Amino acid sequence: MPHKDLAVAVAQTDVKGDRSQGPTTQEHPDYYVRVVEERPDGIVVRGAKIHTSVSTNSDEVIVLPTRAMRGEDKAYAVAFALPINTPGLKLIASPHGSAPKDPYEHPISARHKMMETLTVFDDVFVPNDRIFLNGEIEFAGLLALTFVRYHRFTAVSYKLPLLELMAGAGYAIAEANGVIRAAHVRDKLTHLAAYHSTVRGLIEHAAAACTIEEGYAVPNTLLTNVAKYHFAHNYHHAVQIVQDLAGGILVTAPAAEDMTSEATRDYVLKYLGGAKGFDADKRLRLLNLIGDLTASDFGGYQEVLAVHAEGGFEAEKLQAYREYDFKTVAAYAHKLAGV
Amino acid sequence: MPHKDLAVAVAQTDVKGDRSQGPTTQEHPDYYVRVVEERPDGIVVRGAKIHTSVSTNSDEVIVLPTRAMRGEDKAYAVAFALPINTPGLKLIASPHGSAPKDPYEHPISARHKMMETLTVFDDVFVPNDRIFLNGEIEFAGLLALTFVRYHRFTAVSYKLPLLELMAGAGYAIAEANGVIRAAHVRDKLTHLAAYHSTVRGLIEHAAAACTIEEGYAVPNTLLTNVAKYHFAHNYHHAVQIVQDLAGGILVTAPAAEDMTSEATRDYVLKYLGGAKGFDADKRLRLLNLIGDLTASDFGGYQEVLAVHAEGGFEAEKLQAYREYDFKTVAAYAHKLAGV
Amino acid sequence: MPHKDLAVAVAQTDVKGDRSQGPTTQEHPDYYVRVVEERPDGIVVRGAKIHTSVSTNSDEVIVLPTRAMRGEDKAYAVAFALPINTPGLKLIASPHGSAPKDPYEHPISARHKMMETLTVFDDVFVPNDRIFLNGEIEFAGLLALTFVRYHRFTAVSYKLPLLELMAGAGYAIAEANGVIRAAHVRDKLTHLAAYHSTVRGLIEHAAAACTIEEGYAVPNTLLTNVAKYHFAHNYHHAVQIVQDLAGGILVTAPAAEDMTSEATRDYVLKYLGGAKGFDADKRLRLLNLIGDLTASDFGGYQEVLAVHAEGGFEAEKLQAYREYDFKTVAAYAHKLAGV
Amino acid sequence: MPHKDLAVAVAQTDVKGDRSQGPTTQEHPDYYVRVVEERPDGIVVRGAKIHTSVSTNSDEVIVLPTRAMRGEDKAYAVAFALPINTPGLKLIASPHGSAPKDPYEHPISARHKMMETLTVFDDVFVPNDRIFLNGEIEFAGLLALTFVRYHRFTAVSYKLPLLELMAGAGYAIAEANGVIRAAHVRDKLTHLAAYHSTVRGLIEHAAAACTIEEGYAVPNTLLTNVAKYHFAHNYHHAVQIVQDLAGGILVTAPAAEDMTSEATRDYVLKYLGGAKGFDADKRLRLLNLIGDLTASDFGGYQEVLAVHAEGGFEAEKLQAYREYDFKTVAAYAHKLAGV
Repeated sequence: MPHKDLAVAVAQTDVKGDRSQGPTTQEHPDYYVRVVEERPDGIVVRGAKIHTSVSTNSDEVIVLPTRAMRGEDKAYAVAFALPINTPGLKLIASPHGSAPKDPYEHPISARHKMMETLTVFDDVFVPNDRIFLNGEIEFAGLLALTFVRYHRFTAVSYKLPLLELMAGAGYAIAEANGVIRAAHVRDKLTHLAAYHSTVRGLIEHAAAACTIEEGYAVPNTLLTNVAKYHFAHNYHHAVQIVQDLAGGILVTAPAAEDMTSEATRDYVLKYLGGAKGFDADKRLRLLNLIGDLTASDFGGYQEVLAVHAEGGFEAEKLQAYREYDFKTVAAYAHKLAGV
Repeated sequence: MPHKDLAVAVAQTDVKGDRSQGPTTQEHPDYYVRVVEERPDGIVVRGAKIHTSVSTNSDEVIVLPTRAMRGEDKAYAVAFALPINTPGLKLIASPHGSAPKDPYEHPISARHKMMETLTVFDDVFVPNDRIFLNGEIEFAGLLALTFVRYHRFTAVSYKLPLLELMAGAGYAIAEANGVIRAAHVRDKLTHLAAYHSTVRGLIEHAAAACTIEEGYAVPNTLLTNVAKYHFAHNYHHAVQIVQDLAGGILVTAPAAEDMTSEATRDYVLKYLGGAKGFDADKRLRLLNLIGDLTASDFGGYQEVLAVHAEGGFEAEKLQAYREYDFKTVAAYAHKLAGV
Repeated sequence: MPHKDLAVAVAQTDVKGDRSQGPTTQEHPDYYVRVVEERPDGIVVRGAKIHTSVSTNSDEVIVLPTRAMRGEDKAYAVAFALPINTPGLKLIASPHGSAPKDPYEHPISARHKMMETLTVFDDVFVPNDRIFLNGEIEFAGLLALTFVRYHRFTAVSYKLPLLELMAGAGYAIAEANGVIRAAHVRDKLTHLAAYHSTVRGLIEHAAAACTIEEGYAVPNTLLTNVAKYHFAHNYHHAVQIVQDLAGGILVTAPAAEDMTSEATRDYVLKYLGGAKGFDADKRLRLLNLIGDLTASDFGGYQEVLAVHAEGGFEAEKLQAYREYDFKTVAAYAHKLAGV
Repeated sequence: MPHKDLAVAVAQTDVKGDRSQGPTTQEHPDYYVRVVEERPDGIVVRGAKIHTSVSTNSDEVIVLPTRAMRGEDKAYAVAFALPINTPGLKLIASPHGSAPKDPYEHPISARHKMMETLTVFDDVFVPNDRIFLNGEIEFAGLLALTFVRYHRFTAVSYKLPLLELMAGAGYAIAEANGVIRAAHVRDKLTHLAAYHSTVRGLIEHAAAACTIEEGYAVPNTLLTNVAKYHFAHNYHHAVQIVQDLAGGILVTAPAAEDMTSEATRDYVLKYLGGAKGFDADKRLRLLNLIGDLTASDFGGYQEVLAVHAEGGFEAEKLQAYREYDFKTVAAYAHKLAGV
C-alpha cells in the first residue's frame, strides 16, 4: 500500500550571485535555475535554490521562478515538480543551530529543528508531465507573485504562536522576577500585547477581507503585506523587551548539570529563586525558555526569519506600495487643495 | 413646528486640578463636578468640564463621570443631561486656531473649525427626570468605561479620512515636486500607506469581531485600543514624513495676495512651478493644504488630538493591558517551559 | 558716520522646479539662478532663491550655488554678493505665522518672527568686484559644501535652546499638572533629557574635534551631520512627548480675554488651577508657552525647520555616509572574517 | 618568582530573589550577600552574586554592594576583596554558548568566550585587612554608584569595536552581495554609521568633559548614561539592519565540512559566489562572521549584554534623569512663560 502522507517542499529563491545583475549577466549563467537541454520527453535543468525549508523531510519538491523574467531570460522561466530523490538533485543542509542541546537549557530547540537546504540541480531531467512552465516568460512573474498572494499570508499566520509566546514569556518571567506591578514593566508588556494583537488583527482581517477568484479565497494582499511589514519591522524590538524583562541571567545562568550535581545543586536551588511561587527550578525553566527563544542559535534563526522569510523588508514594502490605492487618496488631496 | 435636527454634546473630562489627587483631596472640592444640593425635584451641581467638543453647536449636553469613584466620592458620582441654555451652565470657548484665515493659504481650516469649551456648572439645577446617576458609586466607573467601549471606536474611525489625506497629500506633493520615483520617497510613502492601512485594518476588524450585548454590537475592545495606540503613537512621525516630502517651502511660501498682486504674481507663477503638469498655482495649493494640515494652528490641533482625544496614551495602554489575555499566553509559556 | 552693524543674509536654495531634473533640462532655464549676460564691468543674473532667512532685515545678501554643477551647467556656477536694495532684486516674504497674536496666548511667537523670502533676481547686474564665482564649475560643489561644513554646525548649535526649552517645558507642566512623580512621566522626561543631551554632546564634540584648515577651525563634519541627523529625526517625537505631558487643554484653553472679562475670569481662575503652587494663571502661562511652541503656526514652523533647515534628511544622511570611514570598518570585518 | 600579572573580577549584582522586596523581606535572608558572623579577626559572609564576569580567570574578586541600603539592612552593607580560591567561595559557571564550534562557521565565538559565574559565598571568612565596608550603611549607595561613575563609562567604551564591526560587516556583505549602490542599502548603512558615531561621540565627549575629583578624572556622568541609553536602546535595531543586509543565508548556509567534502565542495563554490571579487569562500566567511555576531548563541549573548550589562535600561534612565539639570531648564521655561 502506498503511503498517503505525502510532504512537499517549495524551492523558489535562486542563489542569485551578484544581486545587481539579472540571470544572464552574471559571472556564470547558472546563478538562476535554467533549462540547459530540451529533449522530446522532457527538459534538463541546472542551477541551485537556497533556503529550501523541510526539503529533507519531503517526498516532492516544487520549483518556481524567483522573479519576473524578461526576453533574454527565456531559459530561466521554468517551473516543475520532482521527487526529492531524483538523480542529480542534491540537498546540502545547513548546520545552523544543530549542535546537540540539553532540553533543560533549550526547551524548544532541543526538540525542534527545521532543516533548510541549498538545493542543487546538477543537470536534472524533468519529464514533460512534471513541467509547469518552460519558456513562457510572461507567466514567470505571475508564478513568483503567487508566493506573495498566498504564502506571505501563511508567513504571518504561522508567526502568531511565536508572538503569543513572546508576550506570555514576558509576562511569566515578570511574575517570576517579582516585577509584574512596576509601571515600566506594564508598559513593556502592553507593547508586546499590542504587537501581537496588531499582527493578529491585520492578518485575520486579511482573511476576512478576501476576494474569491475562480473559487479560491485570496487573502487581501495589501493587509497581508502590511501585517508582514509590521511583524518583521518590530520583531527585534519585541526580543529586546523580553530580554529586558528576563534579566542578564539569560546568558549567565548555571547549566542543567548544576541542577543535578551534588556539588552545586543546593546552591542553585537556594539562590536562584524568585517571587513567591517561583522556586529556582521554575524560574530557570522560564529563563531557559526565553534564552532559547531570544538569545541563542535558535533565537538568531527566528530573528533572521522575521527579516527574510517569505520575502524581506524591501519585498513586502514594494508590494504594499503597489497594492495601496495612492490614486484615490491623491485625488482626495487634490480635491481638498482645490487643484 | 419644533426643529428635528437635535445635536448633542458630551461633557466628560473634569478639570481635575492636581492630577495626583482624587476629587476630595484637592485644594477645593469643585475640581470634579459634584452634587452640592439635593432637592425634592432635582439636584444642584457645581464644577467644570474641559474639552467639550461642539457644545456651542448643540441643543443638549450629556454629562458623565470622568472615572471610577470610591466611597468618599459619592457626591461626584453624577450623570445627567441638560439643555445647553440652562441657567448657570456657561460655555467658555477656546480661541485656539480661530484667527481669520485666507482660504488659499489655509484650504481646510479657513472653512472648518471645531469649537471646544470649558463647560462650567455654576450651581446648575438638574430636574429629577434628567438625572442618570446620583450617588450610585458602583456605576460611575462603568459609565466612564462606556466611553472606552464605544467612543474610542469612533475616535479611531473618524481619523481614517485624515490618514487617507496624509498619504494622499504625501503622494500628490511628491508628484508635484518631481520626486515620486526616488527610492527614499517610495519608502516614506509606503510607511504612510502602512500606517493608514494598519489603523484601518485594525478598526474594521474591531467592528467585524464585535460581540452582541443586549442587542447592541460592542466593537472588540482590545482591537479598538490597539488601533488607537497605533494611530496615536505614530501620528507625529507621519506628520514628519509629509513635511519631509513637501519641502521647507511649507513655511516660506508667498501669500495668497502675492498670487494676485501685479508686483509679484509673475514672479511667483514663474518660479514656484514643479514637475510637468504642476504649475505654481497647483503646487502652491498642494503645499498650502499640507501646511494647513501639518504646520499650522490647525496642524497643532490635530497633533494634540492624536495624543489626547478620546483618551490619552496611558488610558489606551491601560485598557489594552487589561483586555489582553495575559493569563492564556503566560500559561502557554509555562507549558513550553515545562513549569 | 556710516552704520557699523551690518547684517548679511545668505541665499542658497534655488527654487529647482522639477527636482528630478538638473538646471538645464527644466521647463524653463531659470529654475536655478544663472548668468544671462556677460558685460565688461560685471554680469547680469536671473533666477530665484527660496527660504532666504532674515533677508528683509539685512544690508547685503550673499548668493551661493545650491549644488555641484556639471559641464552643461556653466552659467549656473555663479556666486556673488549684493546690497539688498539692488535694482531688480525682489523679496517676496512669506506670511506664514504672521497673523497678529496675543502675547498671553502666544508668549514666544507674538514677540518673535523670522522672516523668510522668495528672493528673485530679475536680471540683476552684479559688478565684477562683487563676483565670487562665474563659470568655474569645479568650485560650485565646493562652495555648496561649505554650507555643510560650517552652517550645518550652526544649524545644530542654535537649536540647543529650543531643546532645553522642550525639556524644561515638559518638566514644568508635569509639575503644574501634579504628575511629576508618575513613572511614565519620568520616563518621558528622561527621553527629553537624553534627546537634548545627545544633540548637545555631539555638537560640542564636533567643535572639540575640529581640524584647523588654513587657520580656521573646521568642526568635525561627521559628528556635525550625525548631530543634525539625531536632532532632525527625533524632533517630532519630542513634540509628541511635550504635548502628551501638557494635556489636551493645549488646544482647548480659554482666551487671554477670558482672564480679564468679568463674565469669565472667576471661572477660569477657579477651575484651571493645578498642583499646589500652580494657580490657573501660572498653569495657563505654561500651557500657552507649550501650545505656542508645539501646537501652533509657530510650532509647525519649528517642525518644518527641524526637517529641512540647513539641509533635509537626505542631505545630512548623504553627508554622514560620505564622511564615515566605511573602508576602515569594512577592513576590520574582513580581517575578523579571515577574508 | 611570584607572578606579576594579577587579574581581578568584580562581583556586584546580588541574586535578589523577589525583586519587589529589599534584602530583609525576602523568603530567606541570603538573597543579598550579608555578614553572618563577626569575629575578632574578620567577618563571615554568606550569599551569592550573579553575572560575575571573568572570575574563573582572575586571582582576586572584589565584592561590592548592589544598591543603597537602609537602616534594617546593616548586615548587607558589606564590601571586601578575596583571593578567588578562598575556601567556601564557589564559582558556578554558565554554559551559555560554550558548545564546541567550528572556527569557519563561528569565526569569533569559536575563539573567544567570556565566562560568567554565579559566585557563591558559603560562609566565607574575610580577614579584617580585606574588608572595605562593614555595616556603614551610608556608604553602601556611594559604593554602588561608583559603578555608575566609572564602570558604565567603560561599559560604553568597550562596545565601540563591536559597533565598528556592525557597520563594517554591514558594508562588507552589501559589497559581497552586489547591493552596495541600492538606495535602501545606503540608507541602512548610514543608520549604522550614525549609531556608531553617536555612541562614540558621546562617550568621547564624556571623557573630554570630565571633572577632576581628588586627582582622578571622573567622566561626565550625564553624557555617560546618555551614551549607554543610546547604545542599549538601539542595538537590536542595528542587529536587524545587519541581518537584513546579509540575507536569509545567514541561517541556511552550508557547513564548514561542505567546503571540504568532495561530494559538496564544487556545488558550494559554484553557487554561493557573490559580486565580482567575492567568491563563495569570501562571501561565506563574511556571512559566517555576521551569523556568529548576530544570529547565534554569541549574538544572543551580545544582545542581552546590550540590554543588561553594567546596568539595565531602567538603571541608566534613572541616572540620566538624576543628572540632567531639570531645575535650570524648567526655570528657562518659567521665564519664557512669564511665570
